Amino acid sequence: MSDDTDRLTELAKRRGIFFQSSEAYGGVSGFYVYGPAGATLKENLQDAWRDRFVRREGHMEIEAPNVMPEPVFEASGHLDGFDDMIVECPECGTSHRADHLVEDNTDIEEAESIAIGDIEDIIAENDLVCPACGTELAGESVEDFNLMFETNIGPGSSSPGYLRPETAQGIFVEFPRLKEYARAQLPFGVAQVGAAYRNEISPRKGLVRLREFAQAELEHFVDPERDDPPLAEVEDVEVTLYSEARQDDPDGEPLTMTVEEAVAEGVVGSDWVAYYLGVAQGWYERIGVDMDRFRYRQHRSGELAHYAADCWDAEAEVGGDWIEITGFAYRGDYDLSKHGEYADDDFTIFRQYDDPVTVERAVVDPDMSYLGPEFGGDAGAVADALETLAERDRSAFEGESVTVEVDGESYTVPVEQTGFAVEETTESGEHITPHVVEPSFGVDRVVYTVLAHSYRTDSAGEEEERTVLSLPPELAPTTVAVFPLMDKDGLAERAHEVAERLRASGFEVAYDDSGSIGRRYRRQDEVGTPFCVTVDYDTLDDDTVTVRDRDSTAQARIAVDDLPGLVADLRSGEATVADL
Amino acid sequence: MSDDTDRLTELAKRRGIFFQSSEAYGGVSGFYVYGPAGATLKENLQDAWRDRFVRREGHMEIEAPNVMPEPVFEASGHLDGFDDMIVECPECGTSHRADHLVEDNTDIEEAESIAIGDIEDIIAENDLVCPACGTELAGESVEDFNLMFETNIGPGSSSPGYLRPETAQGIFVEFPRLKEYARAQLPFGVAQVGAAYRNEISPRKGLVRLREFAQAELEHFVDPERDDPPLAEVEDVEVTLYSEARQDDPDGEPLTMTVEEAVAEGVVGSDWVAYYLGVAQGWYERIGVDMDRFRYRQHRSGELAHYAADCWDAEAEVGGDWIEITGFAYRGDYDLSKHGEYADDDFTIFRQYDDPVTVERAVVDPDMSYLGPEFGGDAGAVADALETLAERDRSAFEGESVTVEVDGESYTVPVEQTGFAVEETTESGEHITPHVVEPSFGVDRVVYTVLAHSYRTDSAGEEEERTVLSLPPELAPTTVAVFPLMDKDGLAERAHEVAERLRASGFEVAYDDSGSIGRRYRRQDEVGTPFCVTVDYDTLDDDTVTVRDRDSTAQARIAVDDLPGLVADLRSGEATVADL
Repeated sequence: MSDDTDRLTELAKRRGIFFQSSEAYGGVSGFYVYGPAGATLKENLQDAWRDRFVRREGHMEIEAPNVMPEPVFEASGHLDGFDDMIVECPECGTSHRADHLVEDNTDIEEAESIAIGDIEDIIAENDLVCPACGTELAGESVEDFNLMFETNIGPGSSSPGYLRPETAQGIFVEFPRLKEYARAQLPFGVAQVGAAYRNEISPRKGLVRLREFAQAELEHFVDPERDDPPLAEVEDVEVTLYSEARQDDPDGEPLTMTVEEAVAEGVVGSDWVAYYLGVAQGWYERIGVDMDRFRYRQHRSGELAHYAADCWDAEAEVGGDWIEITGFAYRGDYDLSKHGEYADDDFTIFRQYDDPVTVERAVVDPDMSYLGPEFGGDAGAVADALETLAERDRSAFEGESVTVEVDGESYTVPVEQTGFAVEETTESGEHITPHVVEPSFGVDRVVYTVLAHSYRTDSAGEEEERTVLSLPPELAPTTVAVFPLMDKDGLAERAHEVAERLRASGFEVAYDDSGSIGRRYRRQDEVGTPFCVTVDYDTLDDDTVTVRDRDSTAQARIAVDDLPGLVADLRSGEATVADL
Repeated sequence: MSDDTDRLTELAKRRGIFFQSSEAYGGVSGFYVYGPAGATLKENLQDAWRDRFVRREGHMEIEAPNVMPEPVFEASGHLDGFDDMIVECPECGTSHRADHLVEDNTDIEEAESIAIGDIEDIIAENDLVCPACGTELAGESVEDFNLMFETNIGPGSSSPGYLRPETAQGIFVEFPRLKEYARAQLPFGVAQVGAAYRNEISPRKGLVRLREFAQAELEHFVDPERDDPPLAEVEDVEVTLYSEARQDDPDGEPLTMTVEEAVAEGVVGSDWVAYYLGVAQGWYERIGVDMDRFRYRQHRSGELAHYAADCWDAEAEVGGDWIEITGFAYRGDYDLSKHGEYADDDFTIFRQYDDPVTVERAVVDPDMSYLGPEFGGDAGAVADALETLAERDRSAFEGESVTVEVDGESYTVPVEQTGFAVEETTESGEHITPHVVEPSFGVDRVVYTVLAHSYRTDSAGEEEERTVLSLPPELAPTTVAVFPLMDKDGLAERAHEVAERLRASGFEVAYDDSGSIGRRYRRQDEVGTPFCVTVDYDTLDDDTVTVRDRDSTAQARIAVDDLPGLVADLRSGEATVADL
């Protein structure tokens, strides 16, 4: 952590943005609280996400439970595969992530993909010790630890449930119903914004690696053969791509190119993933990510999830580290196929052929008045066997009679009693399993990145040094703060009226009458309030106030009546204080 | 369940409002999904709640984790007291709520408050049987079952965690920090909107008794001696009160009176509770609760939670049953006192005296150059004992010498060597534990009530019978639907433009080009879309469209340019289609 991130963490705690939860009881690693300023910031950021990825794309949003039953995760693969390797110290009992131990103490990278037995060997060969107490770990067994939080639904332990490790499964499992809302037409997208859980062995401090975190996930269901993304909408967007090839090259730097070039040159393998990289680029700029500290990094073959064909992460640099803030994955038909296999429902879409197709089908219509007397209780089974045989091998019906086996017994039937015929039927389409394109945003990390990239200190104009959060007005917890110059002579009453009027126009408004105006500006600057309004003695005369801009510190005098409209324009960027 | 609630459930499933989760895996009782329409409705309802109970009241909102550590619930009392009684059938193994069994099969009411041993006796005496298989339950033991979902934080089982049973604890436990954001001044309120969990033994179908549900809770911290609610703001609001006395009277009907009368006549014991009953009354009207199917019911002495002095529930009638949708509790200092006792932090507020108070304090300042040589290694302990004695009994210092005991040994010290003195100090205030007023809304039940009270069938005008959800425009999942009369001659393009324009103005917009206009109206009516806009051949000529109102089915012709402003006015109720 750099000094700046330390200062940001202190600021976040002091001003109610975020802080560790339950500190009165010593705190619990990996669980954080958003304070009053942070909760509003996070809510605003999620609304901006919905605006871009749900509303503007015409997708749907649902809200599914946090607790889900075991069969869902048997199908999704989380019950078996969502593990970290742990090794427990025989002396002090602390559990450690074995792959992190190896990475931190050897030259080995990506130890996560190494088999457990080999990790045990590496620990022994390198004489690795417990970071907590220094005890030798050679010979200790390394175990898989499932990262889902487990609980029980209802009394007894017969119905295990899990806190969902991703919001995505809440969408996949409801696909049979969701497709009805899309009138069974591809492509369509379903989003979910909500909590997800990962029982980390040793969570880091801060918002970067939480045990309970927020995700904003979009599952876009597409027909892999027929649906193409509207690439033209983002083709000119420039993106910085850190491809696998560049990562493999010791001197490799990320490439900057347009989305169109990235697709044409095959740097990004999936058109759909390329489309969302372009869309997300614009969104990150909008919410205040510093695009000079941002890149898209391709997953290396070794890190690719079992289901993903091509996967890119959006990464942001914070305090000297690159942190993953979004994953863009082409998940193929993995998820829906799995649920289709495990669940008792239809996870396919009926795809209509352009033109109906005529197919020949061999059918039978056995004469039961012959089969009945002939085979007694076995007649039904014989009829079924004839039907199966006709489907499988119509040549069997070319002779005078046909023989089928039922429970190891042979039955011979004259072909003329089987009602065998070849029929032509017309089929209008076929069932396909849609593919899934998934942009998956880690909301807390995006919040943290925006805060870190907005944080600066400067000495604007004649003021002493100040701390500023240059948040986009759309995200700022408070849009406008109102100050009475003095708490007397009716200034406070007038200022309260101004604040009320702005509140009635739907803005988040703060009121502050404590300390000098300069001090009040600094108080608002450090929580990112973009505009401040001061009510002074002139206000009582001519009904004007001073509006001050956070970033430029420019000031302008404007009429109270114009204030709601002006703040709306300042918020949307259609006006600036400097130009007033 | 009445026919109407059955029909509502069917509609909710078919149109994406709500449905049981994971049905592809057989479903899990008590867990529901909000579909695309329902998620938006719920979000809109929560925003209306925030508008009234957070923004307009000037309160704060936070977002704390769903998973909380065990010590929090030791302090809150949930670990010991948040239980239901269960009895397990010895034959089929099904667990049942013992108190419900008793209530359903005897004349006994409120069996929840009966002791476990007595419940066992009642089961035996009444020959109660397992509702699942008919086996006699006499002799089976009744057990307490804790209703919190338990899990483990991190590897091993040494750190139990629980899914919070109410969002309130996430506020109480952070009080030491939250009070800083309120600049340590009472009164202030902190709200949270989010999931809470209750591992019900046998959840009912539908949104009424869920295992995972949403709460909107406000914890208003007040000084019980100094702070009064702004009762004048709601004094004329009429409320329907079903007091304990009225409930005890076999012919007792609820009373209707103003909030002012309810306070003056002592029907509602707490002014703060009365204030929030008045505020909530207006809010329920705003969101479309039928106030003829609504009442406030006082908790009877037997049901009162251990911490609550007076408690009222808002109840709504749905399908013939009264369901609790909000609890209003005066929780006193119970919660903060408990956390103050269990946690290592300060859960008090410093209350300034109106005038500083002068107090006399006896102090000592022993002469260590005397005590040291005299008592050696015990000198420090002797000095401490002198200090304690001075605080406790200053008369002991009236003689020539004073004797203290340390570890059973007596030490006598000349008073002149003790530095005894009585000092006057000025104290500016004292530490008090704030009291808590809590309006606690069950969001899902409020959503369900609003849906049930909005649901009706009629045959408006010349149309055939239709189903309508008369949701307030503020809550409706879609504000306006746009239809092209035909899907040709450029009408669709024009309609898409109109829809885009409305979307750009921030409205939730649906587009539908399928079936007759009448059919499209009905499709929107049943999901509560308040306004429909039809683009027809005249639109191509004169740029006007038909606007149609859901409830009155009134229609008007208006210019496309006026549409965004008009829809805003229709939505806020400042205009009606009939008056155009």
